[in-house]
Amino acid sequence: MSVTEEFLAHNEVYASTFDGPLPLPPARRTAVVACMDARLNPYGILGLAEGDAHVIRNAGGVVTEDVVRSLAISQRLLGTREIVLIHHTDCGMVTFSDDAFRQGIEKETGIRPPWSAEAFPDAADDVRQSLRRVTNSPFIPHTGQVRGFVLDVATGRLDEVV
Amino acid sequence: MSVTEEFLAHNEVYASTFDGPLPLPPARRTAVVACMDARLNPYGILGLAEGDAHVIRNAGGVVTEDVVRSLAISQRLLGTREIVLIHHTDCGMVTFSDDAFRQGIEKETGIRPPWSAEAFPDAADDVRQSLRRVTNSPFIPHTGQVRGFVLDVATGRLDEVV
Repeated sequence: MSVTEEFLAHNEVYASTFDGPLPLPPARRTAVVACMDARLNPYGILGLAEGDAHVIRNAGGVVTEDVVRSLAISQRLLGTREIVLIHHTDCGMVTFSDDAFRQGIEKETGIRPPWSAEAFPDAADDVRQSLRRVTNSPFIPHTGQVRGFVLDVATGRLDEVV
Repeated sequence: MSVTEEFLAHNEVYASTFDGPLPLPPARRTAVVACMDARLNPYGILGLAEGDAHVIRNAGGVVTEDVVRSLAISQRLLGTREIVLIHHTDCGMVTFSDDAFRQGIEKETGIRPPWSAEAFPDAADDVRQSLRRVTNSPFIPHTGQVRGFVLDVATGRLDEVV
Protein backbone atom coordinates (compact mmCIF):
# COMPACT_ATOMS: atom_id res chain seq x y z
CA MET A 1 0.00 0.00 0.00
CA SER A 2 1.37 3.44 -0.90
CA VAL A 3 1.68 6.12 1.76
CA THR A 4 -0.97 8.08 -0.11
CA GLU A 5 -3.41 5.16 0.33
CA GLU A 6 -2.65 5.16 4.07
CA PHE A 7 -3.41 8.90 4.11
CA LEU A 8 -6.76 8.27 2.38
CA ALA A 9 -7.69 5.59 4.90
CA HIS A 10 -6.97 8.09 7.68
CA ASN A 11 -9.02 10.73 5.86
CA GLU A 12 -12.13 8.53 6.20
CA VAL A 13 -11.70 8.62 9.97
CA TYR A 14 -11.07 12.39 9.98
CA ALA A 15 -14.15 13.10 7.85
CA SER A 16 -16.36 10.90 10.01
CA THR A 17 -16.05 13.30 12.95
CA PHE A 18 -15.40 16.53 11.01
CA ASP A 19 -17.48 19.50 12.07
CA GLY A 20 -17.59 22.05 9.23
CA PRO A 21 -17.65 24.27 7.35
CA LEU A 22 -15.82 27.13 9.04
CA PRO A 23 -15.55 30.73 7.71
CA LEU A 24 -13.00 31.40 4.94
CA PRO A 25 -11.08 34.31 6.62
CA PRO A 26 -8.64 33.11 9.31
CA ALA A 27 -10.18 33.60 12.77
CA ARG A 28 -6.88 34.65 14.37
CA ARG A 29 -5.98 36.96 11.48
CA THR A 30 -2.46 35.61 11.25
CA ALA A 31 -0.27 34.13 8.52
CA VAL A 32 2.49 31.69 9.46
CA VAL A 33 5.47 31.20 7.10
CA ALA A 34 7.48 28.09 7.96
CA CYS A 35 9.95 25.60 6.56
CA MET A 36 8.47 22.46 4.94
CA ASP A 37 10.59 20.33 7.32
CA ALA A 38 8.80 17.16 8.43
CA ARG A 39 9.60 17.76 12.11
CA LEU A 40 8.05 21.24 12.15
CA ASN A 41 4.31 20.90 12.85
CA PRO A 42 2.88 24.43 13.09
CA TYR A 43 -0.40 23.13 14.54
CA GLY A 44 1.37 21.52 17.47
CA ILE A 45 4.01 24.19 17.95
CA LEU A 46 1.62 27.15 17.96
CA GLY A 47 -1.63 25.51 19.08
CA LEU A 48 -3.39 26.16 15.77
CA ALA A 49 -6.81 24.67 15.09
CA GLU A 50 -8.73 24.47 11.83
CA GLY A 51 -9.84 27.96 10.79
CA ASP A 52 -7.21 29.88 12.79
CA ALA A 53 -4.44 30.98 10.43
CA HIS A 54 -2.97 30.78 6.96
CA VAL A 55 0.04 28.47 6.81
CA ILE A 56 2.58 29.07 4.04
CA ARG A 57 5.53 26.68 3.75
CA ASN A 58 8.46 25.99 1.42
CA ALA A 59 12.00 24.66 1.52
CA GLY A 60 13.65 26.77 4.23
CA GLY A 61 10.65 28.89 5.18
CA VAL A 62 12.32 31.56 3.06
CA VAL A 63 10.32 34.64 2.01
CA THR A 64 10.44 34.11 -1.76
CA GLU A 65 8.38 35.89 -4.39
CA ASP A 66 5.74 33.14 -4.05
CA VAL A 67 5.52 33.79 -0.31
CA VAL A 68 5.09 37.52 -0.99
CA ARG A 69 2.25 36.59 -3.40
CA SER A 70 0.62 34.42 -0.73
CA LEU A 71 1.02 37.07 2.01
CA ALA A 72 -0.41 39.75 -0.29
CA ILE A 73 -3.50 37.60 -0.90
CA SER A 74 -3.70 36.72 2.81
CA GLN A 75 -3.66 40.34 3.97
CA ARG A 76 -5.44 42.10 1.11
CA LEU A 77 -8.25 39.63 0.48
CA LEU A 78 -8.61 37.65 3.70
CA GLY A 79 -7.85 40.14 6.46
CA THR A 80 -4.75 38.77 8.21
CA ARG A 81 -2.63 41.30 10.12
CA GLU A 82 0.13 39.41 11.96
CA ILE A 83 2.96 37.39 10.38
CA VAL A 84 5.01 34.68 12.12
CA LEU A 85 8.16 33.38 10.39
CA ILE A 86 9.64 30.04 11.50
CA HIS A 87 12.97 28.52 10.47
CA HIS A 88 14.56 25.72 12.55
CA THR A 89 17.78 24.10 13.74
CA ASP A 90 19.33 21.17 11.79
CA CYS A 91 17.80 22.48 8.55
CA GLY A 92 18.59 20.76 5.25
CA MET A 93 19.13 24.19 3.68
CA VAL A 94 22.48 24.62 5.45
CA THR A 95 23.85 21.33 4.02
CA PHE A 96 24.38 22.43 0.42
CA SER A 97 25.19 25.47 -1.70
CA ASP A 98 23.04 27.05 -4.39
CA ASP A 99 25.79 26.60 -6.96
CA ALA A 100 26.42 22.92 -6.24
CA PHE A 101 22.69 22.08 -6.21
CA ARG A 102 22.00 23.85 -9.50
CA GLN A 103 25.12 22.45 -11.18
CA GLY A 104 24.16 18.92 -10.05
CA ILE A 105 20.75 19.29 -11.65
CA GLU A 106 22.27 20.70 -14.83
CA LYS A 107 24.73 17.82 -15.03
CA GLU A 108 21.97 15.26 -14.60
CA THR A 109 19.20 16.77 -16.72
CA GLY A 110 21.03 19.09 -19.09
CA ILE A 111 18.91 22.01 -17.87
CA ARG A 112 20.02 24.64 -15.38
CA PRO A 113 17.21 25.66 -13.00
CA PRO A 114 16.15 29.30 -13.57
CA TRP A 115 15.77 29.75 -9.79
CA SER A 116 18.04 30.04 -6.77
CA ALA A 117 17.77 27.09 -4.38
CA GLU A 118 17.68 29.67 -1.51
CA ALA A 119 20.22 27.71 0.56
CA PHE A 120 21.57 29.56 3.60
CA PRO A 121 24.41 28.94 6.06
CA ASP A 122 22.67 30.16 9.24
CA ALA A 123 19.00 29.85 10.22
CA ALA A 124 18.81 33.00 12.38
CA ASP A 125 20.53 35.09 9.71
CA ASP A 126 18.07 33.82 7.13
CA VAL A 127 15.14 34.69 9.40
CA ARG A 128 16.52 38.26 9.45
CA GLN A 129 16.76 38.21 5.66
CA SER A 130 13.15 36.99 5.45
CA LEU A 131 11.97 39.66 7.94
CA ARG A 132 13.60 42.34 5.79
CA ARG A 133 12.02 40.92 2.63
CA VAL A 134 8.58 41.18 4.26
CA THR A 135 9.00 44.71 5.59
CA ASN A 136 10.61 45.85 2.34
CA SER A 137 7.87 44.50 0.04
CA PRO A 138 5.51 47.10 -1.42
CA PHE A 139 2.88 44.37 -1.83
CA ILE A 140 2.42 43.44 1.85
CA PRO A 141 0.46 46.30 3.44
CA HIS A 142 0.55 45.36 7.15
CA THR A 143 4.06 44.89 8.52
CA GLY A 144 3.68 46.28 12.06
CA GLN A 145 3.35 42.80 13.62
CA VAL A 146 5.96 40.59 11.99
CA ARG A 147 8.16 38.37 14.16
CA GLY A 148 10.68 35.68 13.33
CA PHE A 149 11.73 32.53 15.19
CA VAL A 150 14.04 29.54 15.03
CA LEU A 151 12.47 26.28 16.23
CA ASP A 152 14.83 24.00 18.12
CA VAL A 153 13.95 20.57 16.67
CA ALA A 154 15.50 18.89 19.71
CA THR A 155 13.26 20.66 22.24
CA GLY A 156 10.24 21.94 20.29
CA ARG A 157 10.94 25.44 21.58
CA LEU A 158 10.76 28.67 19.53
CA ASP A 159 13.59 31.18 19.97
CA GLU A 160 12.85 34.67 18.72
CA VAL A 161 15.31 36.25 16.29
CA VAL A 162 16.05 39.86 17.12
CA MET B 1 -2.05 40.33 23.91
CA SER B 2 -1.16 39.71 20.26
CA VAL B 3 -2.00 36.39 18.63
CA THR B 4 1.74 35.77 18.34
CA GLU B 5 2.06 36.06 22.13
CA GLU B 6 -0.74 33.51 22.52
CA PHE B 7 1.17 31.20 20.16
CA LEU B 8 4.31 31.58 22.27
CA ALA B 9 2.41 30.76 25.45
CA HIS B 10 1.17 27.58 23.77
CA ASN B 11 4.70 26.79 22.60
CA GLU B 12 5.83 26.53 26.24
CA VAL B 13 3.26 23.78 26.77
CA TYR B 14 4.25 22.01 23.53
CA ALA B 15 7.95 22.09 24.36
CA SER B 16 7.35 20.79 27.90
CA THR B 17 6.24 17.40 26.55
CA PHE B 18 8.20 17.40 23.28
CA ASP B 19 10.13 14.23 22.51
CA GLY B 20 12.88 14.99 20.00
CA PRO B 21 14.90 15.22 17.93
CA LEU B 22 13.69 13.09 15.01
CA PRO B 23 15.66 12.30 11.83
CA LEU B 24 15.83 15.00 9.14
CA PRO B 25 14.57 12.92 6.14
CA PRO B 26 10.76 12.43 6.18
CA ALA B 27 9.92 8.95 7.53
CA ARG B 28 7.04 8.43 5.08
CA ARG B 29 9.06 9.74 2.11
CA THR B 30 6.22 11.96 0.94
CA ALA B 31 5.80 15.64 0.12
CA VAL B 32 2.38 17.27 0.50
CA VAL B 33 1.56 20.43 -1.50
CA ALA B 34 -1.54 22.18 -0.17
CA CYS B 35 -3.34 25.52 -0.11
CA MET B 36 -2.51 27.84 2.80
CA ASP B 37 -6.24 27.97 3.69
CA ALA B 38 -6.86 28.14 7.43
CA ARG B 39 -9.44 25.33 7.33
CA LEU B 40 -7.06 22.87 5.65
CA ASN B 41 -5.03 21.10 8.36
CA PRO B 42 -2.84 18.52 6.59
CA TYR B 43 -1.93 16.86 9.92
CA GLY B 44 -5.57 16.16 10.72
CA ILE B 45 -6.70 15.38 7.19
CA LEU B 46 -3.90 12.89 6.41
CA GLY B 47 -2.94 11.69 9.88
CA LEU B 48 0.54 13.20 9.72
CA ALA B 49 2.78 13.22 12.77
CA GLU B 50 6.04 15.07 13.37
CA GLY B 51 8.76 13.58 11.15
CA ASP B 52 6.43 12.04 8.55
CA ALA B 53 6.36 14.30 5.48
CA HIS B 54 7.38 17.57 3.94
CA VAL B 55 4.50 20.04 3.82
CA ILE B 56 4.64 22.80 1.18
CA ARG B 57 1.86 25.41 1.13
CA ASN B 58 0.98 28.63 -0.65
CA ALA B 59 -2.06 30.60 -1.79
CA GLY B 60 -4.04 28.04 -3.79
CA GLY B 61 -1.76 25.06 -3.34
CA VAL B 62 -0.61 25.89 -6.86
CA VAL B 63 2.57 24.30 -8.23
CA THR B 64 4.60 27.48 -8.76
CA GLU B 65 8.33 27.74 -9.45
CA ASP B 66 8.91 27.97 -5.69
CA VAL B 67 7.03 24.69 -5.18
CA VAL B 68 9.16 23.06 -7.90
CA ARG B 69 12.25 24.32 -6.02
CA SER B 70 10.93 22.83 -2.77
CA LEU B 71 9.98 19.50 -4.39
CA ALA B 72 13.39 19.28 -6.09
CA ILE B 73 15.11 19.72 -2.70
CA SER B 74 12.65 17.29 -1.07
CA GLN B 75 13.29 14.50 -3.57
CA ARG B 76 16.94 15.06 -4.47
CA LEU B 77 18.35 15.80 -1.04
CA LEU B 78 15.88 14.28 1.41
CA GLY B 79 14.61 11.15 -0.30
CA THR B 80 10.86 11.71 -0.74
CA ARG B 81 9.18 9.71 -3.51
CA GLU B 82 5.41 10.37 -3.36
CA ILE B 83 3.65 13.71 -3.91
CA VAL B 84 0.13 14.60 -2.71
CA LEU B 85 -1.50 17.79 -4.05
CA ILE B 86 -4.47 19.29 -2.16
CA HIS B 87 -6.74 22.12 -3.27
CA HIS B 88 -10.16 22.62 -1.64
CA THR B 89 -13.75 23.79 -2.09
CA ASP B 90 -14.73 27.40 -1.26
CA CYS B 91 -11.20 28.61 -2.06
CA GLY B 92 -10.39 32.33 -2.01
CA MET B 93 -8.50 31.90 -5.28
CA VAL B 94 -11.76 31.57 -7.25
CA THR B 95 -13.09 34.92 -5.93
CA PHE B 96 -10.84 37.26 -7.92
CA SER B 97 -8.97 37.56 -11.19
CA ASP B 98 -5.22 37.95 -11.68
CA ASP B 99 -5.73 41.18 -13.61
CA ALA B 100 -7.99 42.83 -11.04
CA PHE B 101 -5.73 41.85 -8.12
CA ARG B 102 -2.58 43.14 -9.79
CA GLN B 103 -4.25 46.34 -11.01
CA GLY B 104 -5.61 46.99 -7.50
CA ILE B 105 -2.12 46.73 -6.05
CA GLU B 106 -0.70 48.96 -8.77
CA LYS B 107 -3.37 51.58 -8.15
CA GLU B 108 -2.68 51.57 -4.41
CA THR B 109 1.11 51.33 -4.35
CA GLY B 110 2.16 52.57 -7.77
CA ILE B 111 4.00 49.31 -8.41
CA ARG B 112 2.68 46.44 -10.52
CA PRO B 113 3.58 43.03 -9.04
CA PRO B 114 6.03 41.14 -11.28
CA TRP B 115 4.15 37.88 -10.52
CA SER B 116 0.84 36.30 -11.44
CA ALA B 117 -1.55 35.96 -8.51
CA GLU B 118 -2.26 32.38 -9.75
CA ALA B 119 -6.03 32.81 -9.33
CA PHE B 120 -8.13 30.02 -10.86
CA PRO B 121 -11.85 29.55 -11.59
CA ASP B 122 -12.12 25.83 -10.72
CA ALA B 123 -10.26 23.87 -8.03
CA ALA B 124 -10.27 20.48 -9.79
CA ASP B 125 -9.05 22.04 -13.04
CA ASP B 126 -6.25 23.75 -11.16
CA VAL B 127 -5.24 20.47 -9.51
CA ARG B 128 -4.91 19.05 -13.04
CA GLN B 129 -2.79 22.05 -14.03
CA SER B 130 -0.60 21.50 -10.96
CA LEU B 131 -0.29 17.74 -11.67
CA ARG B 132 0.89 18.57 -15.19
CA ARG B 133 3.40 21.12 -13.87
CA VAL B 134 4.90 18.45 -11.61
CA THR B 135 5.12 15.72 -14.23
CA ASN B 136 6.42 18.19 -16.83
CA SER B 137 9.22 19.61 -14.65
CA PRO B 138 12.74 18.47 -15.53
CA PHE B 139 13.79 19.25 -11.94
CA ILE B 140 11.51 16.76 -10.12
CA PRO B 141 12.99 13.30 -10.73
CA HIS B 142 10.31 11.02 -9.22
CA THR B 143 6.84 11.55 -10.70
CA GLY B 144 5.48 8.00 -10.70
CA GLN B 145 3.45 8.52 -7.50
CA VAL B 146 1.78 11.92 -7.80
CA ARG B 147 -1.91 12.27 -6.96
CA GLY B 148 -4.19 15.29 -6.65
CA PHE B 149 -7.23 15.93 -4.47
CA VAL B 150 -9.88 18.53 -3.65
CA LEU B 151 -10.74 18.75 0.05
CA ASP B 152 -14.40 19.42 0.78
CA VAL B 153 -14.19 22.01 3.58
CA ALA B 154 -17.77 21.18 4.61
CA THR B 155 -17.08 17.47 5.21
CA GLY B 156 -13.31 17.14 5.64
CA ARG B 157 -13.25 14.56 2.86
CA LEU B 158 -10.66 14.35 0.04
CA ASP B 159 -11.96 13.72 -3.48
CA GLU B 160 -9.36 12.55 -5.97
CA VAL B 161 -9.00 14.49 -9.23
CA VAL B 162 -8.65 12.19 -12.23
